Amino acid sequence: MKVIVLGGDGFCGWPTSLHLSNVGHDVVIVDNLSRRNIDNELEAGSLTPIRPMGQRIRAWRELSGKEIRFENIDVAQDYAALLALLERERPDAIVHFAEQRAAPYSMKSSWHKRYTVDNNVNATNNVLAAIVESGQDIHLAHLGTMGVYGYGTAGMKIPEGYLDIEVTTDEGERVQQQILYPTNPGSIYHMTKTLDQLLFAYYAKNDRLRITDLHQGIVWGTNTPETNLDERLINRFDYDGDYGTVLNRFLMQAAVGYPLTVHGTGGQTRAFIHITDTVKCVELALANPPARGERVKILNQMTETHRVRDLAELIGKLTGAEVAYVPNPRREDAENDLHARNDAFLDLGLEPTTLEAGLLTEVTEVARRYKDRADMDKIPATSTWTREQRPGIPEQVKKLEHA
Amino acid sequence: MKVIVLGGDGFCGWPTSLHLSNVGHDVVIVDNLSRRNIDNELEAGSLTPIRPMGQRIRAWRELSGKEIRFENIDVAQDYAALLALLERERPDAIVHFAEQRAAPYSMKSSWHKRYTVDNNVNATNNVLAAIVESGQDIHLAHLGTMGVYGYGTAGMKIPEGYLDIEVTTDEGERVQQQILYPTNPGSIYHMTKTLDQLLFAYYAKNDRLRITDLHQGIVWGTNTPETNLDERLINRFDYDGDYGTVLNRFLMQAAVGYPLTVHGTGGQTRAFIHITDTVKCVELALANPPARGERVKILNQMTETHRVRDLAELIGKLTGAEVAYVPNPRREDAENDLHARNDAFLDLGLEPTTLEAGLLTEVTEVARRYKDRADMDKIPATSTWTREQRPGIPEQVKKLEHA
Repeated sequence: MKVIVLGGDGFCGWPTSLHLSNVGHDVVIVDNLSRRNIDNELEAGSLTPIRPMGQRIRAWRELSGKEIRFENIDVAQDYAALLALLERERPDAIVHFAEQRAAPYSMKSSWHKRYTVDNNVNATNNVLAAIVESGQDIHLAHLGTMGVYGYGTAGMKIPEGYLDIEVTTDEGERVQQQILYPTNPGSIYHMTKTLDQLLFAYYAKNDRLRITDLHQGIVWGTNTPETNLDERLINRFDYDGDYGTVLNRFLMQAAVGYPLTVHGTGGQTRAFIHITDTVKCVELALANPPARGERVKILNQMTETHRVRDLAELIGKLTGAEVAYVPNPRREDAENDLHARNDAFLDLGLEPTTLEAGLLTEVTEVARRYKDRADMDKIPATSTWTREQRPGIPEQVKKLEHA
Repeated sequence: MKVIVLGGDGFCGWPTSLHLSNVGHDVVIVDNLSRRNIDNELEAGSLTPIRPMGQRIRAWRELSGKEIRFENIDVAQDYAALLALLERERPDAIVHFAEQRAAPYSMKSSWHKRYTVDNNVNATNNVLAAIVESGQDIHLAHLGTMGVYGYGTAGMKIPEGYLDIEVTTDEGERVQQQILYPTNPGSIYHMTKTLDQLLFAYYAKNDRLRITDLHQGIVWGTNTPETNLDERLINRFDYDGDYGTVLNRFLMQAAVGYPLTVHGTGGQTRAFIHITDTVKCVELALANPPARGERVKILNQMTETHRVRDLAELIGKLTGAEVAYVPNPRREDAENDLHARNDAFLDLGLEPTTLEAGLLTEVTEVARRYKDRADMDKIPATSTWTREQRPGIPEQVKKLEHA
């Protein structure tokens, strides 16, 4: 099938594009290179030496004989170009990664809040409006987040998107209903994904669009079988306080001898998935679209849950790194449980890459291998959720800085 | 108190500004005149001869001795000007009407969908981000819509914003929770108000902003005691297929001898409120803000519910006008019930203006008085919710057009 991957230059988008191309789909990447431009803004960069898109695509053609095309379009800003692309390409499916995806970045300042809302909401609405205007029956698969559910559960595994509830009528009768799981987002970024959900529900109902929303856990790991083929295909690895996700930051901190920075008590439980499983899940989602007229199909794209301090201790044991408890720059409960269903992808045949099996590879083959490229100043999480909070910088490091 | 009214040139915003000024508040109107500009786009206009803002304000000063200031700012686009205004004025409260508010307009085309989402979401997010950045404790009162609840109820009066539910845990235990009422918006416009709700919930939680969300029914009527003081203060009256709300369109159609156009079976039940009550509700909401740290205070701002066909028949009887059933250009259930609580405003002392008491005044003093200003071509509802639907033009009129 022909697939357009919006945001195909990013951390999830690039390996997904390669995988979809590898399994035989005709792939067109759309990206405005915003993630690379944000690196410039933050004076940070991928630990791994990612190549420009032109080089990536040439290397893939050379190695696989397959052609991936690239269009530099800002889908949040340039609706006309997006619509023209759909009319020209007539894709069977669109994978939508084209959103600002870091919670800390979305909280840095008023500008960053506004950019995240404006970019993410307009990107999603433009894609939906363009599919309707094109008159084509295109399946849209979107990358959502487990964060739409909020971080707590009331003694129940989080279902896949929809919650069974009972309400009591004015006559005292009990009525059962199924509703979109009530949201409780933990940042402006996460909030934009809850807005996306309402856009999807509306267009699925009014325009009978076929939409899959993948509520993804925190992605860890770097490479996939495809990006491992050649260093020119290497995927990005973020370790900075804004874009580095918790597990990858720990791996990197261990590799360079920086303390593993645990926010607050580290009692937050998070859902995880390896990047290799991400790309397989997207493949499975594209192979199993909802029918036209069906409600939005929501799948939880995660394979295990862990408490953050347990992860830090595990990596500490594995590598000898020290664990440092620092102020939590986020506004959230200190401790939470998280149990979630992921039956849908397991039923479709997903075989999860476990943390236990994959962790050491990441430390040795990525974090240690490229550690000389690291900028230690970028490691602390400096974005705070409110003005009253302090950034997550460990005492040991503060002392070093003042020495 | 000092109050900034965003969207203070509009149908609800203008009489609200006058009323708040009249009861002694210091009022600053912010508006980008978008509603007047949309009149230009649609080649439609207010039935009543509304004056430019400068004239309106001069007349008010002359009559009341009170000063209302006006700033032409696009709050969705010009964040810097909005923030500077908050820093200069240091208001106690902001009333937020600054959104595109017509469901049919939001469905006219892809451009109109995109404009409505972009304008409404960014206006709301900019206001919230500016309040946070200003560091001030400003109460925000926003005009939402009863449409966020969807058009059906399951044998229960719609509560004010929050729904009591029961969920069953994995151990079979029943747990009670209270959630934001699940949404089911009927148009892109209504959907933007469901997005607003999630923005409010987030900023109330993370930044402890004090926010009131007023879920308003369909506003009918034209003038308030203040706008009635002088013709230069007159409020707008929309009768066109996009901006004219159902009751005002019927009044106008009756006045000019056009059939009363009922969409579908007219079985849709809608909530209503008179413009005089709207302005009083806003006054009451400002006098009763939520505490800092409290969740968003949601009030239903409506006073009665009616089935559309009953309204048409009532006005038909009152005026002798013919009722015409036309295709429903909207995508919605043919028939629905609607019962909603409005205890909060009644408890605060609101004394509703009833349809029964006010209808005839509107027909004689507004619709008949200004009927020569009407453009008959603008009366039919031509915006459809999907490509497959037909506009709501009565057969009688089609025949006339082809004669």
